[in-house]
Amino acid sequence: MKVLVTGATGFIGRHALRALTRGAGEIVAVAHAAKPGATAANLRWTHADLKDATASATLMRRERPTHLLHLAWRPVSGDVAHARDNLDWLKASVDLATAFVDAGGERIVGSGSCFEYDWSDGVCIEDVTPLSPATLYGAGKCALRAALSGLARQAGVSFAWPRVFFAYGPSEHSSRFVASIGGAMLRGEPAEMTAGTQVRDYLYAGDIGESLVRLLRSNVEGEFNIGSGVAASLADIARELARQIGTPELLHLGAREPKSFEPPVILANMDKTAAALNWRPRTTLSDGLAETIAALRADSRTKRNG
Amino acid sequence: MKVLVTGATGFIGRHALRALTRGAGEIVAVAHAAKPGATAANLRWTHADLKDATASATLMRRERPTHLLHLAWRPVSGDVAHARDNLDWLKASVDLATAFVDAGGERIVGSGSCFEYDWSDGVCIEDVTPLSPATLYGAGKCALRAALSGLARQAGVSFAWPRVFFAYGPSEHSSRFVASIGGAMLRGEPAEMTAGTQVRDYLYAGDIGESLVRLLRSNVEGEFNIGSGVAASLADIARELARQIGTPELLHLGAREPKSFEPPVILANMDKTAAALNWRPRTTLSDGLAETIAALRADSRTKRNG
Repeated sequence: MKVLVTGATGFIGRHALRALTRGAGEIVAVAHAAKPGATAANLRWTHADLKDATASATLMRRERPTHLLHLAWRPVSGDVAHARDNLDWLKASVDLATAFVDAGGERIVGSGSCFEYDWSDGVCIEDVTPLSPATLYGAGKCALRAALSGLARQAGVSFAWPRVFFAYGPSEHSSRFVASIGGAMLRGEPAEMTAGTQVRDYLYAGDIGESLVRLLRSNVEGEFNIGSGVAASLADIARELARQIGTPELLHLGAREPKSFEPPVILANMDKTAAALNWRPRTTLSDGLAETIAALRADSRTKRNG
Repeated sequence: MKVLVTGATGFIGRHALRALTRGAGEIVAVAHAAKPGATAANLRWTHADLKDATASATLMRRERPTHLLHLAWRPVSGDVAHARDNLDWLKASVDLATAFVDAGGERIVGSGSCFEYDWSDGVCIEDVTPLSPATLYGAGKCALRAALSGLARQAGVSFAWPRVFFAYGPSEHSSRFVASIGGAMLRGEPAEMTAGTQVRDYLYAGDIGESLVRLLRSNVEGEFNIGSGVAASLADIARELARQIGTPELLHLGAREPKSFEPPVILANMDKTAAALNWRPRTTLSDGLAETIAALRADSRTKRNG
């Protein structure tokens, strides 16, 4: 087993890489530019511009991986959900997977999203809840799954498509919910947010990384929700952050109006994934938030001293 | 209204072009190479290699169409359903639509297929029957619909996606069912086929062209089946061909084994399309086959004399 992982410098990618290097087998992590990446005995870094089809083909012919864990997508900046380059990453991902298959690859695990689902159902169930993405991000992922599923079938390659729900944890971008609310309170600033009644399925990124690697190392095929299956409102999460940081007076629930319509509930049904992988998330919301706060604290110390 | 139509030299494209030129408005038809195309007062031909993103962008900036009828797809040769270049056309189509949107386009009508559906249901209903393409052709179309739907929403452009069922009629490729069975009998050769118990939704290509143009000129959005809604088995169609040609003794039903599993029924539910477009197919199977036989006869005369 030789795994090639893309997006390994990203938020989910870092956690997946940690889970990967804990296991056996050769791992090649792809980065666009030279970046300080994790190190491990069975890990090697390489560079490629995945938006260049020729570079992807060269990469695959040189490395000849048996397993592809494709987490790379557009950079988290600007308008993540609606930016046009979601379509560039659709095309780049098709090229990458095609090159993988042509170089003798055996199994592809992509990276889908709860943004693919029609959210009016609230609880999302694989193979049941309709796919009706409201964003170009969700549409790009939806299109990629259809294309890769067809490619895998045509080429006789094994294929699974995890749909990741809301992630939080160490290394998350400062614009994400937990980092922005927690970060503000850690700086002693007021944390202003909506009433936070929306229920969202937040899963600790360490658990996400572990589940993705479990999926990669298995031989199950099809779509799999990657979430907690536990209903918590944004207000619940924010209050737990305030409690742990010890700054309940800085949390201002209801200080902001929602920007647009927010579905009341987006929750993963985890039955299929639990049965297929014999896996349940290990980290409670309380423990995961504690880890995230510790990382935010360490990060701000580094910045102050750096 | 200025329509740009791709795939206008193809089977369905020719019929759509005929329906387009019967209406008002400027029409630009795109062909890859110089081919003898239809002529009409409101029609102009232009050339572009749609697999070249730069060429698509140049085309759209030069023409600035308000409406895009995108029928181009891979050439009908080799392994239509499973060939890898279905994915090239997915990418090329994303580039074309992006260029159209960026040049100020207002409405996109793509060209989907019944090959997108899960066929185990038999009767396919938009927004109800699951999408589960068995072929790379179906997967490519499925992926394109998801991508274009997201792009159109992001760009504020109107979008409709017809799903064309089985087409027959003048100009069809000699490898297609009606042309191959009818052609053999017209040459006085035995027409060997399976028992032909499979029910397929065959629609006359003239009616398909008309419905596509009706859809393009409307403002309805979403997915629309383009079929007859009438159940006929392949044996029914073959027997009608034999009856009209007058060669029942040349038709050998059951002379061949089916190549692989064939779904017993693939039929379009036409309620949504009929309601949205106030349209029903006009051509009966008997009339449509008569037109096709006449075209096959004319074609063979041209070949003999040419």
